[in-house]
Amino acid sequence: MAATARPIVFLSDFGLGNEWVGICHSVLTRVAPQSPIVDLSHLIRPLEVSSGALLLADSMPYIAEDAVVLAVVDPNVGKDRELAIETASGRHLVGPDNGLLAPAWDAAGGATKAVHINAPDPPRSETFRAPDTLCPAAAKLAAGTALGELGTTIDPGSLAMLTLAEPEVEHGMIRCEVIDFNRFGNVRLNVRREQFATSGLDGAAAVKVEAVSGSTKAKRGTTYADFAAGEYGVLFDPRGWLTIVRGNPASALEGLGLSLGDRVWIS
Amino acid sequence: MAATARPIVFLSDFGLGNEWVGICHSVLTRVAPQSPIVDLSHLIRPLEVSSGALLLADSMPYIAEDAVVLAVVDPNVGKDRELAIETASGRHLVGPDNGLLAPAWDAAGGATKAVHINAPDPPRSETFRAPDTLCPAAAKLAAGTALGELGTTIDPGSLAMLTLAEPEVEHGMIRCEVIDFNRFGNVRLNVRREQFATSGLDGAAAVKVEAVSGSTKAKRGTTYADFAAGEYGVLFDPRGWLTIVRGNPASALEGLGLSLGDRVWIS
Amino acid sequence: MAATARPIVFLSDFGLGNEWVGICHSVLTRVAPQSPIVDLSHLIRPLEVSSGALLLADSMPYIAEDAVVLAVVDPNVGKDRELAIETASGRHLVGPDNGLLAPAWDAAGGATKAVHINAPDPPRSETFRAPDTLCPAAAKLAAGTALGELGTTIDPGSLAMLTLAEPEVEHGMIRCEVIDFNRFGNVRLNVRREQFATSGLDGAAAVKVEAVSGSTKAKRGTTYADFAAGEYGVLFDPRGWLTIVRGNPASALEGLGLSLGDRVWIS
Repeated sequence: MAATARPIVFLSDFGLGNEWVGICHSVLTRVAPQSPIVDLSHLIRPLEVSSGALLLADSMPYIAEDAVVLAVVDPNVGKDRELAIETASGRHLVGPDNGLLAPAWDAAGGATKAVHINAPDPPRSETFRAPDTLCPAAAKLAAGTALGELGTTIDPGSLAMLTLAEPEVEHGMIRCEVIDFNRFGNVRLNVRREQFATSGLDGAAAVKVEAVSGSTKAKRGTTYADFAAGEYGVLFDPRGWLTIVRGNPASALEGLGLSLGDRVWIS
Repeated sequence: MAATARPIVFLSDFGLGNEWVGICHSVLTRVAPQSPIVDLSHLIRPLEVSSGALLLADSMPYIAEDAVVLAVVDPNVGKDRELAIETASGRHLVGPDNGLLAPAWDAAGGATKAVHINAPDPPRSETFRAPDTLCPAAAKLAAGTALGELGTTIDPGSLAMLTLAEPEVEHGMIRCEVIDFNRFGNVRLNVRREQFATSGLDGAAAVKVEAVSGSTKAKRGTTYADFAAGEYGVLFDPRGWLTIVRGNPASALEGLGLSLGDRVWIS
Repeated sequence: MAATARPIVFLSDFGLGNEWVGICHSVLTRVAPQSPIVDLSHLIRPLEVSSGALLLADSMPYIAEDAVVLAVVDPNVGKDRELAIETASGRHLVGPDNGLLAPAWDAAGGATKAVHINAPDPPRSETFRAPDTLCPAAAKLAAGTALGELGTTIDPGSLAMLTLAEPEVEHGMIRCEVIDFNRFGNVRLNVRREQFATSGLDGAAAVKVEAVSGSTKAKRGTTYADFAAGEYGVLFDPRGWLTIVRGNPASALEGLGLSLGDRVWIS
């Protein structure tokens, strides 16, 4: 009885306005025709390695343990090593050696083996290498090729790591920053549940949200339906980040005049 | 000989800027690895239940009779019941109990059975429940699980329905409204062929289109190629709605200054 | 042993804001449930046949030789013949008879057979014919139907061709135009490697780029990482077109004030 083909989970900053995602799918499908391809997101902010890295790590609980993850956010394309990683969980990760994969392998039990992928032929393009290097490597893993056959084994300790901005947490006050927002105008802050608890704000019925561009009182809730139209609130978003929201259809982002990277004080 | 796996047809207002659609695909693929997933649209206007409901109902003729339809447009996420519906046509529908599915089951011969889905585990997130409730339910149906095993059977008569704005039709005049527009600048009105016929305007070579922001004479046609560059026209769009168009490359939307929900008089 | 199903590679200008791509997937999956569908791009500039034609031809090296290519960019929908083409490479091409497919079949060894597709039933819509004509034809080819069974055989010599703007190349100077740009602000010119070599500019360490809206010196490079932040450069993009870039995160498009179709002088 044939085993089910391993899925390929694909993340990039390619956008949807050109043919790059399609070209990659075409290459993946040629090498691993039985593997379903899951497009996790291709709208990572262009060249923002940390944005892609966080999304990938936060998504790991939803990704099958037999998946091959292909991630491409690569400001130095052609300069960084191209990697295939084996994790303790069984998942394989394929991408550039720039820290993009590091939080994901942490979330998957750690990197147990690493290979520097040998491009099998000179790439057809210096500026769009994925179809000639990362895509065939990911698809070969999905189709059953062993990790070691993809290139030269390297020391997992030599891989690039990622440094992320951490909030400053004290009793009754958190200094944090805007790390993302979405089309509903919800504003994601770099604050986790544990950090919110440490500040002692976790039990409050409401908190004060202050930024240079605006401030508000925000009610604590657990789901979007907890807030009346236009009312400000905070909750933990599906990925576990403290998030400023407003009752539909108002936008917290516009209401507070916030932008990516803005400093925010919660008290 | 193995039967072909049932396709999963997926509709939402998640947008494409985050990982939500990808997470759902990941979950669907784990449970139903053989099922092709058809993304009908993920750019339903955020939280607009009626917009998603109409798109889904209008699409039913193109959707296979063995399909499982998964639809998520849910302003009250976590407050509405989560449903799995069996239709007379054989298709199953999975989504929130807020009217989103109602026009679709009407188009599919009616709802013959309904189940209130039991979330199999506490959901990982209160604000993004689909991966823990609706997605597994849809994928299990696609993989062969019986409807009754997904939760508690409920009376189809207890399900939420949807009320849609209807045009006022009299002889020689229709009062209607803008219900959608697209990137080509075509403007969809809430007028069906039968209603246009009832008004007696169906035989006219041209009609008058009036709104607060602008007005024009519009030629009757059947296809976009019927209109010279910049010329205004009306035709029935692929979904059977009366639509104001202009010959390429002009935009009827911009030319008339129209917005979603604007009143329009056709005479 | 069952052969692998032929992939269907799908290109259109439908955009992602409506359900058209999803409807087509639904129809393709019904007829060819085993075939993976590769979405090459659905954001071809609306109604721009030449833009779609170039993207398709440039992508052919990445497309499997057993693929069926479905392409829909059709300003005269309902007026042009609907075609299925057999190429010398083995790939089949399906789309309107307006030149869209011509560069692709040139890139695939030439069109060896052509069929005018008979719509099997009256189409459900005059303005969205693809689900009733082109999609079933492409899916039937993918599922094993012979080309000749799809309609009436026609002379490949009778097919519409495409005329593309060519640059003027002389020693030390190229007069060209902007044919595309992307979200990174990179500007594609209608200049190929051979033409750049013919001008004698190929060996220069930098060139002068002039347009009505702005001008700059641009360093020659081979990959995006060759340029410092804000520095202008030229390189050949992944599709082999001369492209004006700037070191991250600056935009050459905005810096030079360029638009689609603008004339550019390289010297």
